[in-house]
Amino acid sequence: MAAENGPSLGRLASVYSEVQTSRLHHALRLPSVLCSQFSLVDGPPSSATGNPDEIAKLFPNLFGQPSATLVPAKEAVEGKALKVGVVLSGGQAPGGHNVICGIFDFLQEHAKGSTMYGFKGGPAGVMKCKYVELNTDFVYPYRNQGGFDMICSGRDKIETPEQFKQAEDTANKLELDGLVVIGGDDSNTNACLIAEYFRGKNLKTRVIGCPKTIDGDLKCHEVPTSFGFDTACKIYSEMIGNVMTDARSSGKYYHFVRLMGRAASHITLECALQTHPNIALIGEEVAAKKQTLKNVTDYITDIVCKRAELGYNYGVILIPEGLIDFVPEVQKLIAELNEFLAHDIVDEAGVWKNKLEQESKKLFEFLPPSIQEQLLLERDPHGNVQVAKIETEKMLIAMVETELERRKTEGKYKGNFIGQSHFFGYEGRCGLPTNFDASYCYALGYGAGALLQCGKTGLISSVGNLAAPVSEWTAGGTALTSLMDVERRHVIFSSIFFSISDFALHKRNSTGKFKPVIKKAMVELEGAPFKKFASLRDEWAIKNRYISPGPIQFIGSGADAVNRTLLLELGVQA
Amino acid sequence: MAAENGPSLGRLASVYSEVQTSRLHHALRLPSVLCSQFSLVDGPPSSATGNPDEIAKLFPNLFGQPSATLVPAKEAVEGKALKVGVVLSGGQAPGGHNVICGIFDFLQEHAKGSTMYGFKGGPAGVMKCKYVELNTDFVYPYRNQGGFDMICSGRDKIETPEQFKQAEDTANKLELDGLVVIGGDDSNTNACLIAEYFRGKNLKTRVIGCPKTIDGDLKCHEVPTSFGFDTACKIYSEMIGNVMTDARSSGKYYHFVRLMGRAASHITLECALQTHPNIALIGEEVAAKKQTLKNVTDYITDIVCKRAELGYNYGVILIPEGLIDFVPEVQKLIAELNEFLAHDIVDEAGVWKNKLEQESKKLFEFLPPSIQEQLLLERDPHGNVQVAKIETEKMLIAMVETELERRKTEGKYKGNFIGQSHFFGYEGRCGLPTNFDASYCYALGYGAGALLQCGKTGLISSVGNLAAPVSEWTAGGTALTSLMDVERRHVIFSSIFFSISDFALHKRNSTGKFKPVIKKAMVELEGAPFKKFASLRDEWAIKNRYISPGPIQFIGSGADAVNRTLLLELGVQA
Repeated sequence: MAAENGPSLGRLASVYSEVQTSRLHHALRLPSVLCSQFSLVDGPPSSATGNPDEIAKLFPNLFGQPSATLVPAKEAVEGKALKVGVVLSGGQAPGGHNVICGIFDFLQEHAKGSTMYGFKGGPAGVMKCKYVELNTDFVYPYRNQGGFDMICSGRDKIETPEQFKQAEDTANKLELDGLVVIGGDDSNTNACLIAEYFRGKNLKTRVIGCPKTIDGDLKCHEVPTSFGFDTACKIYSEMIGNVMTDARSSGKYYHFVRLMGRAASHITLECALQTHPNIALIGEEVAAKKQTLKNVTDYITDIVCKRAELGYNYGVILIPEGLIDFVPEVQKLIAELNEFLAHDIVDEAGVWKNKLEQESKKLFEFLPPSIQEQLLLERDPHGNVQVAKIETEKMLIAMVETELERRKTEGKYKGNFIGQSHFFGYEGRCGLPTNFDASYCYALGYGAGALLQCGKTGLISSVGNLAAPVSEWTAGGTALTSLMDVERRHVIFSSIFFSISDFALHKRNSTGKFKPVIKKAMVELEGAPFKKFASLRDEWAIKNRYISPGPIQFIGSGADAVNRTLLLELGVQA
Repeated sequence: MAAENGPSLGRLASVYSEVQTSRLHHALRLPSVLCSQFSLVDGPPSSATGNPDEIAKLFPNLFGQPSATLVPAKEAVEGKALKVGVVLSGGQAPGGHNVICGIFDFLQEHAKGSTMYGFKGGPAGVMKCKYVELNTDFVYPYRNQGGFDMICSGRDKIETPEQFKQAEDTANKLELDGLVVIGGDDSNTNACLIAEYFRGKNLKTRVIGCPKTIDGDLKCHEVPTSFGFDTACKIYSEMIGNVMTDARSSGKYYHFVRLMGRAASHITLECALQTHPNIALIGEEVAAKKQTLKNVTDYITDIVCKRAELGYNYGVILIPEGLIDFVPEVQKLIAELNEFLAHDIVDEAGVWKNKLEQESKKLFEFLPPSIQEQLLLERDPHGNVQVAKIETEKMLIAMVETELERRKTEGKYKGNFIGQSHFFGYEGRCGLPTNFDASYCYALGYGAGALLQCGKTGLISSVGNLAAPVSEWTAGGTALTSLMDVERRHVIFSSIFFSISDFALHKRNSTGKFKPVIKKAMVELEGAPFKKFASLRDEWAIKNRYISPGPIQFIGSGADAVNRTLLLELGVQA
């Protein structure tokens, strides 16, 4: 039974479910350092993750600045009223609203008389100066709620000189003291460029980033995890656990579950640690071992055969969304196809295939017909093959089926195989944040407010000691430049970026060939989460060690539990 | 963090999640009538749902027997030890394990020294006498857990004379006093036939049914709902709610969500009542209004266009799995295709299509190419078109896209449309049962034990007053024959069933043309749930009234809430 029309603005017409309502009333705890008076202690000068000389050239005003930690203090930092803007950038992640609530509450409590603006629809809102003024009535209904719908997000970047100028105009018009950019690796890189630009222009507007992405690929020592990863993985794991129980109950299906996350396989790895599937493919391992699709198919098929001998004609297999991006031979085939299809025509008889290199031709013929067709027919507006549209789980089912049929005719396999495909993606991006994500985001936002008040810019809000109770968490900011490396451009001066860097950062052409990036944190094959997985997977493959995590609970034992990846990386769990 | 190896048998190698463990310890309440001494009070003689004369002929030993209600009593029913078998039949539904726990606990508490057998793999286990003896250690780990893996299920039916004889042999060999059949409409019909057969053979073995199916299509006045429906709908609604928040946040996708449930659209209707989608298609309405696929496509497209005018280029649409089974023209096309493909060959030029009737040809050409191909290429082992494999959600996306393009060229639509398809099915069959399903199933099982102890056969365990607290629920049994009607056979004497009915029920050939069935309870267009939906859908279509039910909670406010369909049908909710 829904509480008819709770709050009055923003989600004006919304009807809340009982759980949504109870989450609205869930009291958010803060790290104790944020509960009382605090001051900021700077660490030593910072460097960069790679190529510090180049980073120093790209960020002359910011490079080298120290990271900072909040510590208890006897006196309060001067509580001047601030004007602060906030923007959500990129894909949704559970907890985004709580970052905003954290900033808002900080300003209410530590900088009375402050004004807060929410830029609408992502960075485009900053450029076009489209915003909503955030007040208590407007913000309240979003506390602990999923989604980004309070101000919505967008995928634009502030890149061209004109766009930087637009952002500057907005900052000036609204007299912004601060701008908080909530986003992933790209968005935080962009935040740092804006911070550098504003500093270079002597604007008073400071810029602070916040680490957001369900993919879990924005992290480092000081930023142990990105928000949303915990909730998304728990939602997917609930579903995987249910499917596992179903597999074991009906005894006749192999469930191939593709999980969101194109670049890194953290989600798949975390879900595997939570649920113990028979197989989980990790893209980074496939790439490191230079595996082919045939290798992957054989690996799955071997396990299916072994299980059949034990009487198990069922199983659960997890697949990262970006799997085929990790397979070198697929990349090669796609490149050849893009090249070929741009100039040539596919003939029915298949003679065209002789124009592919031998290896690529072999791979193409190994692919199931439906995938072959997809590769040839579906192109993006630039005429390129749409790799992202390939339903990898269905492709693998078809390839395993073919291989099993072959083995059956050879008398090497006597089981039955029925594949069921799943894709878990959108279900996980906007769920109600777990207690962990709710608290983590609130602390990130509250801490971002504190950093702005202390006059900091070019930092990413950093909350640490996350395996401890919330009260013991640390808070502070990490220099965004310290997370950076450069990427060398493949194309000579085709990028808009370099015109900005020239214009905005007053750099010479000679530095134009480098682009600053916060490198995505990939699954480390020597890291604790992967090693834990690798030590157990052979047992999981054959014996059924399924775990059903069940639906996320907000109260009761375990409601505050943190995901495995984080605990393993923190060395708290063996 | 999982409790390493809890229980010792059955789920021997299982590791339980925190939530699974906490559910294991969740204390199950019973209706107060089952907590103390009780006796059974018979109601008036019963009839049948339809064609009572035919049902009387098919069930000479059982027809007319009264339903029975458990009432508090001063003296205990004599607690003789019993031998009881239990079998799970058909698809999984959350709560099945609790029915078994209920029977088990009843025997432990009211019939000391009893023996309980679990037949393995469904009715085949009964026929082949494959069973496991259930004891405390074995049963314990399954309390409040999802799945059917304690003894597994199967889709066989006991139909031929030989099979009835096998069941008889098993009953004799194990000296069964009772057999509890947990299943859907078909399985309960089968249970009644077995009860009749055993009674006719003067066996002491009584047979009691239990109403199971996530589809919600086994229900009547005395059996207000089938177990599993509550949990499954809440799991799907959690996911739908998340997708809705995502749709509203990103503002650029139309999510087409197909929901499990081939025969009836109860799941779609319930999920709609829980989440308020922009569109929910109800198969029964499509059939009643004799709608065509073009009508359905236009209905969706009209709403997409109206929403685009309001600036909403996103939405959520729910589709019952069995939608196209409800569209008369599709049935006609399929029949023609089956006929045609059995004898003829499809030519590339498409001349073959002239052999279809005009209306069917038009429909075929209206279908998206991928669906056309699927209809022509994918056949089941009998050579028939595999309607069940059609991904209706993708088909509708393609058809709406085409129609929108047409309107765009006519200047009638200026929006953007990107469809995302989902199928929520297996995720919902084996989740941890909600508090409602956990208690309901436990009471169904406990009550089934009581019915057996009182010497009853041919009843379905019935628990009522479900809107009240568990302690006030009623318990008893409803005559299975009273739920029955007959179906006239289309094919003359081709069915195995009639040889049983002849053999087992000693009926004449003249009755052989009827088959007893418990008719599936379809969505009633005059029923309270549909009327509620129909009164609100126009508002939901245009305004965004999305509700996010969130993950199922096991403790806290709302954890005991019952689904909308049931509350509306009970007249408790307006």
